[in-house]
Amino acid sequence: MTTCTLCKRRDAVYLRAYSGEKLCGKCFTKSIEDKVRTAIAKHDMFERDDKIAVAVSGGKDSLTLLHILTKIEKDFPSARLCAVTVDEGIEGYRDEAIKFAEQNCHRLGVQHYVTSFRTLFGIELDDLVTLLARKDKSKTAGLSPCSYCGVLRRRALNVAARKAEADKLALAHNLDDESQTILLNIIHGDPLRLARVKPVLAEKHEKFTPRVKPFCEIPEKEIAFYAYLKEIPFQSVPCPYATTALRNDVRSMLNYLEERHAGTKFTVLRSIARIQPSLEAMAGEAVLRECELCGEPTVNRTCMPCQMLKELGVTS
Amino acid sequence: MTTCTLCKRRDAVYLRAYSGEKLCGKCFTKSIEDKVRTAIAKHDMFERDDKIAVAVSGGKDSLTLLHILTKIEKDFPSARLCAVTVDEGIEGYRDEAIKFAEQNCHRLGVQHYVTSFRTLFGIELDDLVTLLARKDKSKTAGLSPCSYCGVLRRRALNVAARKAEADKLALAHNLDDESQTILLNIIHGDPLRLARVKPVLAEKHEKFTPRVKPFCEIPEKEIAFYAYLKEIPFQSVPCPYATTALRNDVRSMLNYLEERHAGTKFTVLRSIARIQPSLEAMAGEAVLRECELCGEPTVNRTCMPCQMLKELGVTS
Repeated sequence: MTTCTLCKRRDAVYLRAYSGEKLCGKCFTKSIEDKVRTAIAKHDMFERDDKIAVAVSGGKDSLTLLHILTKIEKDFPSARLCAVTVDEGIEGYRDEAIKFAEQNCHRLGVQHYVTSFRTLFGIELDDLVTLLARKDKSKTAGLSPCSYCGVLRRRALNVAARKAEADKLALAHNLDDESQTILLNIIHGDPLRLARVKPVLAEKHEKFTPRVKPFCEIPEKEIAFYAYLKEIPFQSVPCPYATTALRNDVRSMLNYLEERHAGTKFTVLRSIARIQPSLEAMAGEAVLRECELCGEPTVNRTCMPCQMLKELGVTS
Repeated sequence: MTTCTLCKRRDAVYLRAYSGEKLCGKCFTKSIEDKVRTAIAKHDMFERDDKIAVAVSGGKDSLTLLHILTKIEKDFPSARLCAVTVDEGIEGYRDEAIKFAEQNCHRLGVQHYVTSFRTLFGIELDDLVTLLARKDKSKTAGLSPCSYCGVLRRRALNVAARKAEADKLALAHNLDDESQTILLNIIHGDPLRLARVKPVLAEKHEKFTPRVKPFCEIPEKEIAFYAYLKEIPFQSVPCPYATTALRNDVRSMLNYLEERHAGTKFTVLRSIARIQPSLEAMAGEAVLRECELCGEPTVNRTCMPCQMLKELGVTS
């Protein structure tokens, strides 16, 4: 058995290939919590008296984030934490996930706000997918259910965070998510979106809750291992609509590269971080105004969610 | 048998997945020549009276480029063409490639200039690799033989093009090379180099011959098929030092993505082309001056080739 590189006492259970560290369970979980603290400090994610809404889906990443932020919050008496969950309306999937979210919030003593696509948009994702399948593909720009769900979920989270009177919305996007999104933006021909893949996303509009990503530099594998060591109960069934082929391919490829060249995902993130100032200058500052139809913040006259719902015939 | 989409007469022998075209041999080769003409026009690669030096290694890409440019040049009576080859000094490999280069130049009636690492730098690549293997890895920044060879070969080609009094140096980099280089720059953490992955690279220095890439939008597979149909003799043995693991991995991955999502490589190229103006502005204009040691154009006091040769103890 190898001994832990840090405490030099306990047996190592995790080999961190990109740093060469061999860690015992205790040093491993501490290292993850330290990484989160570092990311928060480095990117100025929170003020000392922020109310933070954690976006909790019920999966391992968001529940682990909730656990770690609850722990860190104890050192900041004037900060407050709550959880927000969006019920998209996916039968046999989201209902179970919400139970995990509730269970964890209860255990941690965190207030839990649940909102739903049905309440906010008048339609559940299951019905939206049926509508989408009937539509002429040329009229939906070939978008997958995930594209629609993503736009609506981001909106729902913003509304929920605002209702919870949160100052920040914390998302559990990890290093894998972020590096995949970077390559996807390039492969999709949407390079200006690279400017938005960053640890803190704030927009100048009172209705927009700034989004922070405390996990953005932590590999997915390490979050999964943390959840396992801490015995965090979570939903592990994948979403039945998660069939976005391209992201899966990019995921496999990045994992393969990371396996052979440890540190690849970090480097992808840092590369883009270096050129973001120039991309932001090129894209220009987004001027947000209120959507003519729903009043939510948008750069266009009508927001993306309203456009999508209209296009699908949900609204007229 | 399927009929050719273009002539609607002959049998199709090639399916172009990203456009849906099914092409006969004649329409296929014509389409490649047309694509080269289009790229030349679109990116203003040549003046009507340019002397063009084609960098010819002896492999399929460079020899195919030589064949196609020879054909196109016939329409431009005041343009002139020559070939330049660099002998890096790789026993049992480059010598054979040079024979293919000579044979093709002779057949096409193109003047052929050959220069070598030995003449220019006083050392052959084989010896340089031996030196490199003996070196402390921390002192060579972990660079592979390919990194050294690349720097020296680019220098050698520039010197050869200048000696041939060429106005332009034409390189056979294809769509695969370019899209790989883009992802490699991101994965390597060198995003400002993205500004240099483009069809025409000109530097403001009289000793620098502008480089053009007429194949930059043509997939490698199509160049190989053109060479096959036209029965162009070329060297197909890979370089014995070609073990740059990361480029090979990126190649496999891009091929896999292209297979599943036709057009991926194009989109990668176009994505980066869109943000290049802002990257160029960020990088600032390179001010070239003459190297203190060899007088060749460089941004630093001493050029990369001189630095590398000194570091390896070839020069003092």
